[in-house]
Amino acid sequence: MNEIIQFDLLMPKRIVFGWGMRAQIGILAATLGKRAFLIAGSRTLQRAPEWEEMMQALAESGIQVEAIATTAGREPTIEDVDEAAAIVRELHPCSDDFVLGIGGGAAIDLAKAVAAMAMNAEGASIRDFLEGLGTGRTLERAPLPVMAVPTTSGTGSEATKNAVISCHAPPCKKSLRSEKLIPAIALLDPDLTVSLPPAQTAYSGMDAITQLIESFLTKRAQPATDMLCQIGLTKAIPAIRAVYRNPEDRQGREGLAVAAFASGIALANSGLGMAHGVAAALGSVCDVPHGLACAVMLPIAMRTNLIPAREKLGILGKTALRPVATEEVPGSAAEAAISTIETLLRDLDIPRRLREIGVQQRQIPELVQGSRGNSMNGNPRDLSDDELRGILEANW
Amino acid sequence: MNEIIQFDLLMPKRIVFGWGMRAQIGILAATLGKRAFLIAGSRTLQRAPEWEEMMQALAESGIQVEAIATTAGREPTIEDVDEAAAIVRELHPCSDDFVLGIGGGAAIDLAKAVAAMAMNAEGASIRDFLEGLGTGRTLERAPLPVMAVPTTSGTGSEATKNAVISCHAPPCKKSLRSEKLIPAIALLDPDLTVSLPPAQTAYSGMDAITQLIESFLTKRAQPATDMLCQIGLTKAIPAIRAVYRNPEDRQGREGLAVAAFASGIALANSGLGMAHGVAAALGSVCDVPHGLACAVMLPIAMRTNLIPAREKLGILGKTALRPVATEEVPGSAAEAAISTIETLLRDLDIPRRLREIGVQQRQIPELVQGSRGNSMNGNPRDLSDDELRGILEANW
Repeated sequence: MNEIIQFDLLMPKRIVFGWGMRAQIGILAATLGKRAFLIAGSRTLQRAPEWEEMMQALAESGIQVEAIATTAGREPTIEDVDEAAAIVRELHPCSDDFVLGIGGGAAIDLAKAVAAMAMNAEGASIRDFLEGLGTGRTLERAPLPVMAVPTTSGTGSEATKNAVISCHAPPCKKSLRSEKLIPAIALLDPDLTVSLPPAQTAYSGMDAITQLIESFLTKRAQPATDMLCQIGLTKAIPAIRAVYRNPEDRQGREGLAVAAFASGIALANSGLGMAHGVAAALGSVCDVPHGLACAVMLPIAMRTNLIPAREKLGILGKTALRPVATEEVPGSAAEAAISTIETLLRDLDIPRRLREIGVQQRQIPELVQGSRGNSMNGNPRDLSDDELRGILEANW
Repeated sequence: MNEIIQFDLLMPKRIVFGWGMRAQIGILAATLGKRAFLIAGSRTLQRAPEWEEMMQALAESGIQVEAIATTAGREPTIEDVDEAAAIVRELHPCSDDFVLGIGGGAAIDLAKAVAAMAMNAEGASIRDFLEGLGTGRTLERAPLPVMAVPTTSGTGSEATKNAVISCHAPPCKKSLRSEKLIPAIALLDPDLTVSLPPAQTAYSGMDAITQLIESFLTKRAQPATDMLCQIGLTKAIPAIRAVYRNPEDRQGREGLAVAAFASGIALANSGLGMAHGVAAALGSVCDVPHGLACAVMLPIAMRTNLIPAREKLGILGKTALRPVATEEVPGSAAEAAISTIETLLRDLDIPRRLREIGVQQRQIPELVQGSRGNSMNGNPRDLSDDELRGILEANW
C-alpha cells in the first residue's frame, strides 16, 4: 500500500539555481518590473567583482536601480525598516516597481519588510505589524514583489514568509509574518557564497541545519517538508565540513546552498522548535550571532525532545545523521543523531555551553521570557517556564 | 563526481494536494482576496455534491463569489474570453479580487486568460495578445491572481504560463503566454477527478503523458524538469491503466493527478514538441479532442524523433516506459519505449491512424500549416513542411 500523498506547500514562484546564474539577474528582474529598490547586504559585497557584474546585467536589461539601504550584518531593526520604507514611499512605488535584496538573511529580511511596509504602513511603524509585539495590524495591500539573491547559505529567507526584525525596547526579535512576504523570485548562485569566511560559513550553515532538523521534528511536520529536510540534511552535513576546511570547495558550497534553500521552504511550511525559540532570545538579550545561537542550542533541543521525537530522531540517526564508521556511538539511533551533531559542532570549533558564548547566568530568566513565540509553539515537547529555565541552567 | 545542479523553475507559489483538500478552498481563497470571479468547467460539475461543498466553504470564509462563465468542454474561444473579461471589467476589479477556475483545462485556461484581459485589454480583444496571431501586444499590468482547481488530470494548466485559445478565422489554437499567467494557487483534490468517465480519463491522461514525454525529449529539456518527467511517467503509466479499468481506483486517480501537475511544471519550464504542435492543428482543423489528438500523435512523434532522441528514449525504455515482462520487444531500449506507448494506446482503445479519428486526407496540408508554433520549435528533430506532410500521410 503506497502512502497517501498530501501536502500544502508555499514557495517562491520562480527558483533559479546554479553557478554563474547571477548573470541572469537582469532578465529575471525584467519579469518583475522596471525599477528596483535595492537593499544590499554589506559594503564588502559591494566592492566584489560579482556585484559589478550584477549591476551591469541589471542596467543592460533596462532596470533602473534605486539604492535604498545597506544592512550592517545584523538583523534589521524597527528603525531600519521604517527609514527604508519611508525612502521607498517618497519614490512613489507603482506596479512597475519591485524590491531587490542581495545579501545575507538580514538584507533579504529587510527587503521583504520594506516591500510590505512601503505599501501598507502609510507612515506608521512596522512595530504595529510585528507578531507578539504590535497592535496586530495585518498587510491589507499586496507588498511590492521581491527578488531575493542570497550571498550566504543559512537563513533560507529567500523562501520564507517571515522577516525577523530586532527591537530595542523591549530587547527582542519578532517576525513580520504573512504569506504575502514570500519572494517572487529566488536567485541562488553558490558562487556568491564562496567569499564568506569560515566562521560565518559555519554559523550560517548551522542555522540551516538547525532549521532542517527542527522542521523535521516539529509537531507541524508534514510528509512533503520531511522529504525536503532529509534531502537537505544529507547534503548539508558533508557540505558544511567541506567548506569549513576549504571555503572554495565547490561541491560543498553548492550543497549548503541547496540545503539552506530547502530549510527555508521547510520552515515556511512547517515551522521550527525550541532551538530557534531560544536563539531569538540569545540574539536580542545577549547579542549572540543567530547561527551560533542556533548551533549551541541544537543538541540541547534534540536531547530535550528525545522522548516525544524519538522515532523521527531515530530516522535521522539511521540516515542523514548517521555517525561515520569511526565514530560509532553506543545507544539508540536517536542518540546517534544527537551525537553526530555534537561531533560536528566540535569539528566546527563551536562551543557547547551557554557561558562560552557570552551568556551571563543572571540573564537566564530573561532568556526564558524571550523564547516564547511561534517557534516554541511547534516544539515536540511542551515546556513550562520552570522546565525551560532548568534546561538553560543545566547547559549554562 | 556529482552532477552540477542548475535549474530555473517557475511554478505556482502555493501547491495544495490531497484527497478532500477541496475543503480548504475557502481558507486558501481568503489569502488571495475577498471576491472571486468564478469560471466553472461544466454544468454537470455544478450539480455534484463536491461543488456545493466548495461553494459553502467559500461562503464560510467570507468570499463573495461572482459567477462569470461556464465552459462548454472545449478550449475557450476568443469570443469566450472577450465576453467574460468584459463582465469582470464591469465589476471594477480591484486588489481584493481574484479569479477562481474550477474545471478541466478549458476552464482553467479561460480563468487565466480572463484574469489577464480584465486588467490589460481595456476593451480590446485577446486576439491582439495571442502568440503568432495578434499584434504582439503584451501584458503590461499584472493579471488578477488565479486560483486553479482542476477536475481532470490532463493539461496541467494549473501549473503553466499559457492559456490555449481557439480561433475560428483562421481556424487555429494559439496561446496567450506570459510568466504572469502562472496561477498563484493550485488546489488539487484527486476526488474531484473520480467522476470523469473512462474515455475522457484516458484522453486527458494521455495529454499528461504526452507532455511528460515531450518535455523530456525536447531540445529545451533541463535536469530539473527531466526528473519531474521521470517521476510523473513512473506514476502515470500504471495509473492510467488502473483508472481506465476502474474509474474509482484511488491510487490511480492520485497518481494521474500528480503526473498531470508534474507535466504542467515540466512544460511551463521546458516546452513540448511535435505531438503537441500537430495536436493543436488536429483540434482546430479537424475538431479532434485535444487528449485524443495527443495520444494518436505520441508514438508517431516518438518514432520521428528516434534518431536525435535515441539516448533519452532509451532512458525511458529502461525505466518508466519499460515494457512489462510478458511484452518484451526486440530492438533497442528506445524502441521498447515506443512499443510501451503503442501497447498502452491499444489497451485504452485509442486508434493509431489519423483517418480513424476523423481526419480527411485533403486536410493534411492545412494540418501542416497549423502545426507550426512554440511546441514544434522545441522538437528534437527539425522538420520541413514536406517532411511533416510525408509523416502525416504515412500515418493517415
